[in-house]
Order: sequence, then structure tokens, then C-alpha cells
Amino acid sequence: MALPLLLLLGAGGLRAAERSGGGGSSSSAMEELATEQEAEESHRQDSVSLLTFILLLTLTILTIWLFKHRRVRFLHETGLAMIYGLIVGVILRYGTPSSSGRDKPLSCSQEDRPFTTLLVNVSGKFFEYTLKGEISPGKIHNVEQNDMLRKVTFDPEVFFNILLPPIIFHAGYSLKKRHFFRNLGSILAYAFLGTAVSCFIIGNLMYGVVKLMKLVGQLSDKFYYTDCLLFGAIISATDPVTVLAIFNELHADVDLYALLFGESVLNDAVAIVLSSSIVAYQPTGENTHAFDAAAFFKSVGVFLGIFSGSFMMGAVTGVVTFTKLHCFPLLETALFFLMSWSTFLLAEACGFTGVVAVLFCGITQAHYTYNNLSVESRSRTKQLFEVLHFLAENFIFSYMGLALFTFQKHIFSPVFIIGAFIAIFLGRAAHIYPLSFLLNLGRRHKISWNFQHMMMFSGLRGAMAFALAIRDTATYAHQMMFSTTLLIVFFTVWIVGGGTTPMLSWLNIRSDGPDSERRNRTKQESAWLFRLWYSFDHNYLKPILTHSGPPLTTTLPSWCGLIARCLTSPQVYDNQEQLREEDSDFILNDSDLTVTYGDTTITANGSSGPHTATTSLDGRRTKSSSEEALERDLGTNENWSFFYTTH
Amino acid sequence: MALPLLLLLGAGGLRAAERSGGGGSSSSAMEELATEQEAEESHRQDSVSLLTFILLLTLTILTIWLFKHRRVRFLHETGLAMIYGLIVGVILRYGTPSSSGRDKPLSCSQEDRPFTTLLVNVSGKFFEYTLKGEISPGKIHNVEQNDMLRKVTFDPEVFFNILLPPIIFHAGYSLKKRHFFRNLGSILAYAFLGTAVSCFIIGNLMYGVVKLMKLVGQLSDKFYYTDCLLFGAIISATDPVTVLAIFNELHADVDLYALLFGESVLNDAVAIVLSSSIVAYQPTGENTHAFDAAAFFKSVGVFLGIFSGSFMMGAVTGVVTFTKLHCFPLLETALFFLMSWSTFLLAEACGFTGVVAVLFCGITQAHYTYNNLSVESRSRTKQLFEVLHFLAENFIFSYMGLALFTFQKHIFSPVFIIGAFIAIFLGRAAHIYPLSFLLNLGRRHKISWNFQHMMMFSGLRGAMAFALAIRDTATYAHQMMFSTTLLIVFFTVWIVGGGTTPMLSWLNIRSDGPDSERRNRTKQESAWLFRLWYSFDHNYLKPILTHSGPPLTTTLPSWCGLIARCLTSPQVYDNQEQLREEDSDFILNDSDLTVTYGDTTITANGSSGPHTATTSLDGRRTKSSSEEALERDLGTNENWSFFYTTH
Repeated sequence: MALPLLLLLGAGGLRAAERSGGGGSSSSAMEELATEQEAEESHRQDSVSLLTFILLLTLTILTIWLFKHRRVRFLHETGLAMIYGLIVGVILRYGTPSSSGRDKPLSCSQEDRPFTTLLVNVSGKFFEYTLKGEISPGKIHNVEQNDMLRKVTFDPEVFFNILLPPIIFHAGYSLKKRHFFRNLGSILAYAFLGTAVSCFIIGNLMYGVVKLMKLVGQLSDKFYYTDCLLFGAIISATDPVTVLAIFNELHADVDLYALLFGESVLNDAVAIVLSSSIVAYQPTGENTHAFDAAAFFKSVGVFLGIFSGSFMMGAVTGVVTFTKLHCFPLLETALFFLMSWSTFLLAEACGFTGVVAVLFCGITQAHYTYNNLSVESRSRTKQLFEVLHFLAENFIFSYMGLALFTFQKHIFSPVFIIGAFIAIFLGRAAHIYPLSFLLNLGRRHKISWNFQHMMMFSGLRGAMAFALAIRDTATYAHQMMFSTTLLIVFFTVWIVGGGTTPMLSWLNIRSDGPDSERRNRTKQESAWLFRLWYSFDHNYLKPILTHSGPPLTTTLPSWCGLIARCLTSPQVYDNQEQLREEDSDFILNDSDLTVTYGDTTITANGSSGPHTATTSLDGRRTKSSSEEALERDLGTNENWSFFYTTH
Repeated sequence: MALPLLLLLGAGGLRAAERSGGGGSSSSAMEELATEQEAEESHRQDSVSLLTFILLLTLTILTIWLFKHRRVRFLHETGLAMIYGLIVGVILRYGTPSSSGRDKPLSCSQEDRPFTTLLVNVSGKFFEYTLKGEISPGKIHNVEQNDMLRKVTFDPEVFFNILLPPIIFHAGYSLKKRHFFRNLGSILAYAFLGTAVSCFIIGNLMYGVVKLMKLVGQLSDKFYYTDCLLFGAIISATDPVTVLAIFNELHADVDLYALLFGESVLNDAVAIVLSSSIVAYQPTGENTHAFDAAAFFKSVGVFLGIFSGSFMMGAVTGVVTFTKLHCFPLLETALFFLMSWSTFLLAEACGFTGVVAVLFCGITQAHYTYNNLSVESRSRTKQLFEVLHFLAENFIFSYMGLALFTFQKHIFSPVFIIGAFIAIFLGRAAHIYPLSFLLNLGRRHKISWNFQHMMMFSGLRGAMAFALAIRDTATYAHQMMFSTTLLIVFFTVWIVGGGTTPMLSWLNIRSDGPDSERRNRTKQESAWLFRLWYSFDHNYLKPILTHSGPPLTTTLPSWCGLIARCLTSPQVYDNQEQLREEDSDFILNDSDLTVTYGDTTITANGSSGPHTATTSLDGRRTKSSSEEALERDLGTNENWSFFYTTH
């Protein structure tokens, strides 16, 4: 929603500027009027171009509704948004007359490098100008060729600063799943090792392609090895959305779901940080594009620094958000929103990556803060971020369709494109199969061949790859990379998005076996390190940070009694009866449980009803041992995945 | 929420520009690096300044919570936001070092008037600059005096294009109240006639003050009669929020509430259109500031044109929003949001006033579209706009506090300020008392003296006056008007906001008499014109546009049977059992009702439970006669007012 208001702002700025510019002296009334009218005209055009996007989104929503209504699954909503974007792009490109720009280059020259702000003397009055960007000398005359095309082109940073954060935050906030923590080790391996392997392999293959292109004379400008590696990083970011929506609707295997979702979400973060580390790789001395060990290690340092910094920042703000403003859901929701946003800004202010910080903020908020929210605030925050995520995502995808025709600097090189498709295939293969083999050595519950094939197939590229590619389109190499990325996104979203359902049936991956059987496996499979952390989290962190979990007085040794009493929220005692992990009633196939808590014995009936949004008050169970809570916790928030798809 | 992301965008643009500006040639690596670092620095500063605002809002929320918790009523949340804004403003003003700007005026001059875009040649490379505004010659050297101050200064159009729309839409969406329609005539009189009277009287009084200032030599620049009238229009916009929140908490008289709320909301719309008509008043010929009858009638025409255009546009889009996407609340909510926003953009694109269009869009959507939404979407849309409204409002008020110290062009003239306070007092008096007298001639249920005093007292100025005043601060007169408006807003929000509770008890306006007694009065008091419209609306519009109301087949004459069957939604027949005006169960003090619908007699029990958010399915009543439905409808959505205040 925040989305393209920005464009309006730009226009507003212009309008105000021209008005105040023209309003100074009373002698030139006609001139004022002309400026005023021009400003109005520009504002109108901005409104029209924004309306275009809204129309696109509206169309997409209506068609999605039709598709959902008729249970059409061969095309996902994002694919649809892209198609509408393409159509509008064609219309804008070929249907609107190319107006002549009224801008002439100023003949005066500055000395060394451009100022960010200019003061220009126009017949006695001073006007302030701000720097917009460099224009290559050959393009001076066709820069402003088509006003409409220029209007619908957004600043690339819009994607990073406004559209991606809600998408990524929502992904993190939805991550608290039963099977995510069970497969944590594998997910981390896929995300970190896998993305690095994929980036490196794609980068090297593309360097080969580039060398080949140079040999046959297809390359007209420079294309460095670092550019190839950057392309590898950009294109290694897989999209968590499309396939998973279908997975959820079909109730496909939950372990596979967790592996895919976790990998996709985390590998976005890895890809962002990886790409900024590659950009930061700046060898010293004259030969700026040869290998430099010092610069390489600096890049690795940058990667580790940014990643851990963003992670810490997100985790800390997530934990710090003590929204205990019960009784006032509006205040709670607003505070929750502001805290999530300030995580983003804080990370950016410290030089870390805001999007990564927001991801981990989402994960920790789902883990801790969510338990502190009132029931109404839980649904409010969820719905708020759901709407933001939905609008931002569909906006990005329809913008992608539009960009294919309205972006003015496309460079489509068939050799590069074919090479890129082969490279991403091989990169994905080199990422999934060897890693799965290694992971299977350590996993009790193996990742089957069918799972591996499905993961191989599901590696579609989406919003993150696009946003990374459009971020810098200044050089020839980057422009070629952007055009290729766009085509890869189109291809994978349409083919993979449409092919998921047949692929799932072909590979025979449908609903999983009885859940209770799986739950019994949990004990053996969870890594000892994770279990250690879990019991710490359950016994100490949760009681301190949330109202749930056992009071510290029962988990800490008796000699810590005083500290325990201070740190435990009084509500924990008050709510002792209600003490529970949230949404524990959503665990499927639960049998009745008789558990002992403190010195009272409670018999509770875990309801095994369908996934609905109502938070019923029955079906609460309370346990004191962290072992049992672990199982329960792994099973919590299964309903999130449901919410994720019902839109 | 959309709010200050924009600033970030600006920064992002700069950053991307500088990056692409520096990334072209590989020969000047050091220079690139320097530009890159500067861009990073600028981005960081932007993040910090945004964090400042988020911190402000967070503080405000926490304090509001504390106040609500302790039931403190002497200071409203908006007053609080202003205080925090003031504090941060002082710190920014006097606590940060004034950095020297690195901008030098370019010595070259353009010929006639400034271009919106400049191309500047810097040592062979071309850079694009966009116009930001004019700077008076004397201020060239202190324009960029303090980077931090500049960072926290927003483009004035931000308020109109981003912050006001959600506030005004929310007000319109909340307007559907029992007592609003009953007092429609009086509200319209207050809003239209009252605002015009107030604007004219304040304008003339201020012109007298300006003349006086000229006599005693207090005025150093031009101050025209149109400026005075503009000031009258700006300062006639009263704020609906602060007093009404307190009214609601105290359950003050509902008729008074409806009068005040309706008047405040509509008079914002009138004030906007009035001020743009005054700006459009452009006499022809040399003597540009003498009275010109032709220009005057043109202004009146502009007023009527813009107002009716915006009204029509809002009403039509509100009606057109056929969100019948049941089963998919996310899609419904997204569509609803997009439609409301496109109303704003469409109006702006057509040259009307977006904010006014959004107001009427909100009113019609509450009237028609709301009935088509699924239960979940109703609460979703309500909550979404509630959060947006809350954040936008508190942001504006804290920005006001900040602006007192960070705005660089304040002109505080004691004579003008004192004159303005007297003028708004007299203007408000000339608006309330004579109009109330005239209205009382026609009203059966008189507006008592105590009510009139309370309305007189409640005329506080808020966000709209501020946004109108900051829109144009180019000339000396406008700067003085802005500074004065700021002080008036501070004064009225603190004094009136704090004094409402004592004033209410002093004037002995507390909870109203039994509700049922009032309901009986409805029949006599509703104007015949309104009743005519109402029955048309109930019998024909509602069945066509929503799923509620009687089927057309029962309301149209029998010879229209075919058309009636075509136009009636099939769901009306399906839902015949459930047919009802939404939320009718929120009417207080309802006794059991036995009503006849069609040929079935239904006895329903109107629940008189507390105002809660749950929409229970019992307590539905169905009536066929529009008379009875009128009463019911007037009583619907009483719970809106509750939501309006529980934050």
C-alpha cells in the first residue's frame, strides 16, 4: 500500500516547487499561470500512471478470484500479474505517442564532480535542483523521449526500501512452522552452502559464456568476472511464494514444504548479502579486475559482518518488542508495525542490510512477540502484513511484466540468455543433489530422490532476483544481466508455477503419512545442539520475554529464587491456568493428553478440528518439561501456512 | 504507514543516481568510491531522520497507552504527539551542529523560466537534475545550513497526497451513524454556510489587522486581500478528532456528537475547495489584486465545479465497488483498498480534489459496499484504515510540533497572531450562533444554548488547517499565515482538547435520555426531502447495489417484474432469511420487535448487549417498509463510533 504513492510524491514535489517558483513576483502573472498549468498537467499524468498500476492490480485480483473460484491451478497469481503487466507494457510502448522533451542541456560546466544540489540563476531568481543521475552522452536526446514511459519507471531503490520489506517480513513471520525447526540443519545448509555453491558455479559458467561471446564477437563492451559472480548471486535467490502456495493448497508433504520454504526465505537473505559483498570486492591498485586475495577476504568479511549484524539487529528488535499494551489492539498493532519498520531503518542506518534484518525480526517476533499480543492484535498484525505483502508482491510482478517493454536499456543477447538458462539449471543441480547426498548421511529421515527432484524443479526466481538485478543497470554488463534475469523470472514463474501440480502428482508427493508417527520421530531427529538451545529458550527466554512458558521459579534452581521472581512477568502466574503454547490446538491427530504441571493435574483435549482462524479456548494443554513443549512447539502455528494460501 | 518511507525513497533515488553516476568509467576509481561513500552517508542520515519520527510515534503510542490505562483525559494523544514533536524539534534545532552545505550557485543563467529538468555537463559527463523550488536571493547561503533540519522537512504535498487521504477516508467511513442522517440538514448548513461565513468574516477581520499593521509599520512586505481570505478558508477547517474521541469516551449527547462530527468532516472538504477557489481567483488585467466580478464568479464556479465533481466521483466509485469476492477476504480487502485509492487518483487526474472525493467515497462505501463485504473483510478493512488513520494522524501532529522549530521561514508577528485569535473566535461565533438560531426555527428538536456553547468551544483546528497552510509558504504573507496557523493549532488542541471534559460537565451535557424516546421522534423530524430520498435508496438503490434490502420484485410495481428480476442479486433471495441492515444488533435499549416481512412474520430479539466486535448472528430483524428500515438504518453502525475511540 505504501507502494507507488511515492511516485505521486515525486510529482507533488515538482508541483509545489513550480508553484512556489512561480509565485514570487506579481509582474509575470501570465508566466506564473503557464508554470502552474504545466505543474497541474504533470500531476495529472502522475495520477494517470498510478491509476494504471492500480488498474493492473485490480484486474489481477479479479482474475485471481475467478481462478480460485474455478479452482484453476495452471497459472499462479504472480504469473497472471506479469501477463497483465506485459499487456499494459506493450500498450504504453507502442500505443502512446513519443512526446518531445522540453529539456535542453545546459552549456555551462562544473569543475570536478556533480553536486547533489544545484542552485541555478534564472533571470534573477534562484532555483534549487537535485541530482537525478548520469546520462550517457549518446542518449541525451532520447532520454525524455516518452513521458509516459518515464512516468511508469520507478527508482530501483523503491523495491528495496518499500516493496521487499513487507514481503520478506511476512515470509519471516510465517516461518514459525512445525517442520521448519525440525529441518533447521538441512535448511541452513541449503541456504548458505547451497547458495554459495550455486552462485559460484553460475558465475563461472557465465564467465565461460562471456569468453565465448568475446571470441565470436557478440560482446560489444566490458564484462568482468565480478559481473559474472554478481549475476550468480542475483539469480541464486529463489522465490518462496509461488510453488509453496500450490503446495499448501494441495497439502503436499510438510517436510518438503519446510525445506523449500526455509531454503527460499533464507537464501534471499544470503543472496542479498552475497551480492553486496561482491560489489564491495574492490581490488586495490591499477588492475582493478584481477583477483586480489586481500579484497577477497575483505568481501568475505563484509559478508559475515553484514549478515551477522543484520541477523543480530533483527533478532534483538524482535525480542525487544515488548508489546504488552493489552486492551488497546490498535496501539499494539501500530507499535508492532513501527518496531518492525524501525528494525529495517536501524539496520540501514548502521550500514547493514535492512531486508535481512526485517527477515530475522519477523522470525523472532513470530517466536516471542506474537505470544505477548492480545488475540485481536494477533489477527490484526497478521492481516495487516498479509495485505501489505499481497499488494507489494503483485505490484512487483506486474511491474516486471511492464518493465520488459518500458525499460529503455534492454540488451538481449541470445547466447548469454541460453547460457544463463543452462547455468542456472546446472547451478541448481550442483546445489541440490550433492548437498542432499551429504545431508542424507546425517539425517535419519532421508530426503528422498523424489523430494530432491521436486526441489530441483521448484527453484523459480522471483521478486528478489528482479530487485537485485534492477538495482544497478548503469553498465552494459548489468543491463544485459537485467534483461536476462527478467526472462528467467518470466520463464520460471510460468513454467514452474504452472507445472507444480502435475510435477507433484508425477513424483507422487502428496499428503504425508500420519502425523503422530512423525511426531514420535522428532525426539530422535532433532540435533542435540538445537535441543539444547530449545530447552534454554523454553525454560528461560520465553518466560522472561513472553507471558508463556513455565514461571522461572520452577525452572531455575532454588538458589536463584529472588532473581526468578523479579524476572517472571506477574501475568505468568495469573495466567498459570491458561499457560500454553499458542495455537497448540491446531496440532492434527492429537489424542487426549494427561499432563502434570506443577502440582496440579490437568486433562485437556487437544482438538483435532479443521484449520480455522478462530482461536478456541478449549484444547489447551500445559506441560512443564521442555521436551514435551518442544514437540508441542514444533507443532504450533501450523495454521500460518494455511493463512498463507487462502488469499 | 505509507508515510515517511517517501523520504527514504528520495534518498534511495539520490543514492542510485550517484551510484550510476559514478559507475560509468573505471578510470576514476577513487572518485567513484568517494561518491559511493557520500551516497551511503546520505542514505544513513535519511534512515536516522526517519527513525526519529518512528521513535516519536513509538513514544506517543506508549504514552497514550499509559494515559488510557490511567484514564487521564486532560491531554489528547494528538496534543501529546505535538509535545514530543516540539521536544525533538528543539533538540534538532539547537542540538545539532549546522553543517556547511557543499552547494554553490552555478553562475550560468537560463533565459526565461526554469525547466523542470536540467542536464548539466560535468567534465564531459551529463547529469540530470530536477527542479526543487525557488530560493529567495537573500537566503542562498543559509539554505542548506543544517542537513538534519533539511532531512526532517517534508514536501508539503506529502500531507495532501499521503497523510490526509487515510484520515479523511476513515472519517467518511465512520460517518454512517444513527444521528448523522437525522441531523443532515443542520450539518450541511453548518458545513457549507457556516464555513463560508467563518471564512469571510475571518478574512475581513484579518484584512483590517493587516491594514493596521501597515499603519504602525509592522508589515514589511505585501499582504493582499486574497491572502486574508485564504487565511480565513485555511483556519475555518475544524478538526473532527480530538473532541469527538473524548465525547465518545464520555458518552456525551449523541445529537451533539453527530452535529460536531458531521460539521467537522464536511467542513474540511468545504475548506479545501474554498481555498483552491480563492487561489484560482485571478483577476484579469493589470491591477491583479482589485475586486473583479468576473473572476469572483469564476471562483464560485470553480468551487461548485470542484466540489460537485469530487462528490460525484467519490460517490460513484464508492457505489461501483462491487466487492462480492466472498470466501477470499484478503482479495476483498485488497480490492477495497485499491478502489478507495483509485478514487483519490481519479479525482486528481480529472483536476478535482482527491481528498474530498475520498471523503464521499468513504461515506458511500460505508453505506453500500460495506453491506457487500464478508464479515471478515468488514473487520479487516475497518482495522486496516484504522491503523493507517492512527499512524497518519499522529505523524502529522508530531510533525507539527517539529515544524515549529525546524521550519526555516517562520514569521511570527504578535499583532497578526493576536488578531487571528480574536478573528477565529469571532468567526466561529458568527458561524455557530446565528446559524443555530436559524436552524432552530425549523427544527423540532432545538439545538439548545448549551449545545451551541459546546460547538463554539469545540472548534479546534488540526491536521487539515496545517496541511492547507504548509501547502504554499513561498511568499511573506503565506509564511506569516503558516506560523500563525501552527500556533492556533497548538493552542486549540491543548486548551480545547484538555478542556473538553470539564466543559462538558460544566455545560451539563452528559449521556442523553432514553434512546427509545429519541427513536420515536425520528419520524417527525426527518425532513421530507430526506425521507423521500431514503425510501428511494432503501427500496431501489440498496437492492441493486448490495445484497441487503428487500428484493426489487417486492418494491417495484408488478409491471416492472422482468426488470426487477434481472437487477436483483440472486443472493437477495438466497439470503432472504438473513436479510437485514448490518449491525442492527448494536442498537441500545431495543425491546423485542415483531415485524412483518413479505408474507412471513419473524419475531426477533434485538440484543442490547455491550458494544463488542463480534457480529453475532442472532438479533436480526427484517422489515419491509422503508419507514421502519429508516429507523433501523439510522441506528446502525453505532459501534463505529466505539471503534473510533477505543484506540
